[in-house]
Amino acid sequence: MTTPTTDHTPLANALRALSMDAVEAAKSGHPGMPMGMADVATVLFRQFLKFDPKRPDWADRDRFVLSAGHGSMLLYSLLHLTGYEDFPLEQLKNFRQLGSRTAGHPEYGHGAGIETTTGPLGQGIATAVGMALGERMMNARFGDALVDHHTYVIAGDGDLMEGVSHEAIGLAGHLKLGKLIVLFDDNQISIDGPTKLAVTGDMLARFEAAGWETDEVDGHDPEAVAAAIARARTSPLPSLIACKTVIGYGAPNKKGTAGVHGSPLGADEIAAARKELNWPYPPFEIPEEIRATWTAIGAKGAAVRKAWEDRLAASGARAAFEALLSGALPAELSTAIAAHKKALSETAPAMATRVASQKALEVINPIVTATVGGSADLTGSNNTLTKGMEIVSPENYGGRYIHYGVREHGMAACMNGLALHGGFIPYGGTFLVFSDYSRPAIRLAALMGLRVVHVLTHDSIGLGEDGPTHQPVEHMAALRAIPNLLVFRPADAVETAECWELALQATSTPSALALTRQNLPTLRTEHTDENLSAKGAYVLREAEGGAARVTLLATGSEVEIAVAARDMLQADGVPTRVVSMPSWELFAQQDEAYRTATVDPATVRIAVEAACPLGWARWTGENGAFIGMEGFGASAPYKVLYEHFGITAENVADAARARL
Amino acid sequence: MTTPTTDHTPLANALRALSMDAVEAAKSGHPGMPMGMADVATVLFRQFLKFDPKRPDWADRDRFVLSAGHGSMLLYSLLHLTGYEDFPLEQLKNFRQLGSRTAGHPEYGHGAGIETTTGPLGQGIATAVGMALGERMMNARFGDALVDHHTYVIAGDGDLMEGVSHEAIGLAGHLKLGKLIVLFDDNQISIDGPTKLAVTGDMLARFEAAGWETDEVDGHDPEAVAAAIARARTSPLPSLIACKTVIGYGAPNKKGTAGVHGSPLGADEIAAARKELNWPYPPFEIPEEIRATWTAIGAKGAAVRKAWEDRLAASGARAAFEALLSGALPAELSTAIAAHKKALSETAPAMATRVASQKALEVINPIVTATVGGSADLTGSNNTLTKGMEIVSPENYGGRYIHYGVREHGMAACMNGLALHGGFIPYGGTFLVFSDYSRPAIRLAALMGLRVVHVLTHDSIGLGEDGPTHQPVEHMAALRAIPNLLVFRPADAVETAECWELALQATSTPSALALTRQNLPTLRTEHTDENLSAKGAYVLREAEGGAARVTLLATGSEVEIAVAARDMLQADGVPTRVVSMPSWELFAQQDEAYRTATVDPATVRIAVEAACPLGWARWTGENGAFIGMEGFGASAPYKVLYEHFGITAENVADAARARL
Repeated sequence: MTTPTTDHTPLANALRALSMDAVEAAKSGHPGMPMGMADVATVLFRQFLKFDPKRPDWADRDRFVLSAGHGSMLLYSLLHLTGYEDFPLEQLKNFRQLGSRTAGHPEYGHGAGIETTTGPLGQGIATAVGMALGERMMNARFGDALVDHHTYVIAGDGDLMEGVSHEAIGLAGHLKLGKLIVLFDDNQISIDGPTKLAVTGDMLARFEAAGWETDEVDGHDPEAVAAAIARARTSPLPSLIACKTVIGYGAPNKKGTAGVHGSPLGADEIAAARKELNWPYPPFEIPEEIRATWTAIGAKGAAVRKAWEDRLAASGARAAFEALLSGALPAELSTAIAAHKKALSETAPAMATRVASQKALEVINPIVTATVGGSADLTGSNNTLTKGMEIVSPENYGGRYIHYGVREHGMAACMNGLALHGGFIPYGGTFLVFSDYSRPAIRLAALMGLRVVHVLTHDSIGLGEDGPTHQPVEHMAALRAIPNLLVFRPADAVETAECWELALQATSTPSALALTRQNLPTLRTEHTDENLSAKGAYVLREAEGGAARVTLLATGSEVEIAVAARDMLQADGVPTRVVSMPSWELFAQQDEAYRTATVDPATVRIAVEAACPLGWARWTGENGAFIGMEGFGASAPYKVLYEHFGITAENVADAARARL
Repeated sequence: MTTPTTDHTPLANALRALSMDAVEAAKSGHPGMPMGMADVATVLFRQFLKFDPKRPDWADRDRFVLSAGHGSMLLYSLLHLTGYEDFPLEQLKNFRQLGSRTAGHPEYGHGAGIETTTGPLGQGIATAVGMALGERMMNARFGDALVDHHTYVIAGDGDLMEGVSHEAIGLAGHLKLGKLIVLFDDNQISIDGPTKLAVTGDMLARFEAAGWETDEVDGHDPEAVAAAIARARTSPLPSLIACKTVIGYGAPNKKGTAGVHGSPLGADEIAAARKELNWPYPPFEIPEEIRATWTAIGAKGAAVRKAWEDRLAASGARAAFEALLSGALPAELSTAIAAHKKALSETAPAMATRVASQKALEVINPIVTATVGGSADLTGSNNTLTKGMEIVSPENYGGRYIHYGVREHGMAACMNGLALHGGFIPYGGTFLVFSDYSRPAIRLAALMGLRVVHVLTHDSIGLGEDGPTHQPVEHMAALRAIPNLLVFRPADAVETAECWELALQATSTPSALALTRQNLPTLRTEHTDENLSAKGAYVLREAEGGAARVTLLATGSEVEIAVAARDMLQADGVPTRVVSMPSWELFAQQDEAYRTATVDPATVRIAVEAACPLGWARWTGENGAFIGMEGFGASAPYKVLYEHFGITAENVADAARARL
């Protein structure tokens, strides 16, 4: 084995060379950031980061988040050089090509070592807050011997301009996440040019105002960077280190300009950079001694990891630790949910589904100890807090409920981070209309396949007087449009319990529960252990007096209306079936036989939902009809609004009659 | 006439009484904030605000934005007492009832005096930044004699926790909007309880870091409040005044608690408050001398307004001023667009629609001088900057292009504020996928009916290597779901020019233009002056050899694919029509005759769009088919992706053949 070099610069230049060469080979990508932050990343990985490329799932590893995800080649270069199996040189050569693990932006799940998907700016740092919080919460449960790791973030100007960064750093400061360290690539350049075109504030003062410790260093001085990270690690507060860097460092003619941000350098500039960096090697070739040093950097964590495994084995907590991390649901959950449903069916309470959600959580939370609740300052409205849940605070990371503040976006990203960290099933509440605020993070959860649950109450004009700013109209459709997201809108307390069970069982899919503010009757008065919502839609009321001529489709609060319309049509002698559709996505996954047996195309199909029509034609066909909202809502008591907008049993029945 | 009182407290108590009584009558609403901020609002309206209730559209009035929109009764009480015609006592008695102007949250357009719709937190302050910027930009055009007004905002804890507030205050600080003054209702209470449950930062330091001047006062000391506002008015920087208040001030048992935030006080507490406030009058009754004083406050602006009108008349700029404010498009625009289209049809360039958008803007911007462009740090990618547009900066408010920074949400809200201010038609660019970030502000533009144009480039997997984080899949559907939003996806440079014209003509509807990164051929090679996109969908290629048996529906970059598929089907002898659908919304507005004549239900209908299928069944029917995306995209060159995801002419033709 070649003797490892101790010189910093060639190590950093290896990152620079791989990055510029891969971008050049792809004819597409972002060389500027990797070249600018190569020194900082080298110091971090070499001297501080606790990791073992042979065991990338080691629970107590430090987390490294490249928030400025466009600089993905920096991450891929690091993973390659330190020995992550998923990132051989071949992958780097196939940067940005179909099927490669080296996508344009880091994609969680593409290869071990990518801790989270980044690229949409601000998401990485906000997700990292959730990871860092997860570390403290696991630490509170298992102690320093088993859980004691840092979360490091590289963030750029763009990340910190995004609003979600404000929510995230506010939350991190409030929760005193001292093991969160953000390395700010302070290169003064954004895409449009110098950042001063759009920004003049004082970044350090801003973080200090949010309760962070701050520092400023020359990002190309490895000793200064190391000293700053060492200081930050001792701080009880989260830390920002502004690293003054030159974007595209090493590219003599383009460095320090916006031109080096998002385009290949070109052959001439790459040749010039090789000279400037004293890097005479061909593309993708790393001299042996430099490679050996990087390999050694990757190897140093193995002993630490083994020592940790020994501690885990000796701790007596191994089974509990691994059970929590596995994400498996306790076997008794289904039994408990079934018993809960039975009690509801028997007592048939009139209850808002947001309250029914809380009742379901009262059953779930004592059994599923991985759940972590919270709300964006609407706890009493979202009904997300259950008995005995303590509040998470710097004094009590052992709590299970998070007051996120009015930070819907930050909440959703934090939930993603908690899920990625492992050990937790996060759920968080806000009003359905404000899912718009958290949408970029919901999308990332769907893209990454994370089990997080969004509790979205006040789900229609049924919220009443707060008016159109608070009444979702387009949000069901907008959420249904997101791939790999389960959108649930239960019709009563029984369905609510079923939807919660499904959301928890969906280990690689986020869920959104749309829940009412207003009371609804219990429609499921005949108990069955079976989770009827699991098929997405099912016959709630069968037609009587012959084969169904009409099928009424509804979700949530409008199922009650469909049932009333059915009674009218049955009174007319028209056999009418009511199908409750708590989840379009699950219904769409059923085979065609079940789908047509449930929603029979030979019947007149009328859909009713207090929302916009987009998407319903798929279920009603062209000859069917939709009763719902055609525009924004209004401010009035909710029963007045249902009448005003014509979402009534009479109108549903009339629509069917007109088509018979 | 009764002699006006000079005493402050009864004036403020009138606001408190009206607010608590209206909430009580509605059995719903938020008394805490109006009661807490009544003193501050009284000082502002009495001593500073420049307004004339008889001419609420006076262009040089100060703007007052109640960002904490849940406290709407504070605004309605002020508008009522100062004499706004739209807000007689009857309206206050009908607070939160159907058809009243006094909705649960202030709704722009419900009554003159409501400057913007607020309620979704953070939107008010972010919109106000646009208003304040509009003031400076109009001032640069017409001078101090005609444009010299302040923008005042009342914001609460929730507003300032929202991420968009970070983007907004950053932009305001950068642009040195000295005439923007934010009165922060610093009552330390949010819905979940004390704000310290979720927030520990230093608000004043935060604003200072963003380039603001700050101050802190007792919000119940009118002299201190007045002194702080007076100081703020002299500052060249935007100002934050933290007003220490007691939420629900005057309600002796509930004040200072979260319980007073969002529920009626109840009869007992209202009785107690009447005693505490020394307010022995029945509900909705205002003693004459107090009413007279408030009336006088409302009347004092008339003389100022008249003097301004005289200045306008004498200025020589009146015609230009009024033309700009009218929002009318110059008559020559349509001629110029037609000439531009003709040139394109003749030269038939291959061109990305984002570039075509810039070409259209090169025609539009010299003619429509009200346009103000910008981008969230993607100027070169969004192609939003045209020749000769100067950059807006503190040194040059006369510019027409705004570097918004990486602040998509703040940009969208700022655009709303510019449109509300009057004098401007704002457009702003980002990637389509990041419309998720700005969605809450896009929604408000739709709800308010504002003419703003979102330039959303990189509109599908056609952006290629940046991968799924950057590839919109669900965004067309999500935008189409929003009521009163025109969503355009033009197929070539000619359609792009047409869609721009339609967006500008839509005076009470925001627009979103979805534009490609990749080149597209010019499909409209036969020129017509008529704007064919105006009907939303039209026959681009007619079937040959008989009546159409197949209709291919497509938007944007997939129209080219539909045209190629048509050629294949025609070669098979299947008469096939291609319908380009640049706007679903406009097509849905056409009469049924046009719709069925264009998209004939008797034909096999195949839709193709590189996006999720949601909503397409409305146009294809159940027997049709959709070729597009079923999940997230991938990172690869775009032609590879189209093949990989099967969005090809072959697949479109095959889908048609299978159904013939």
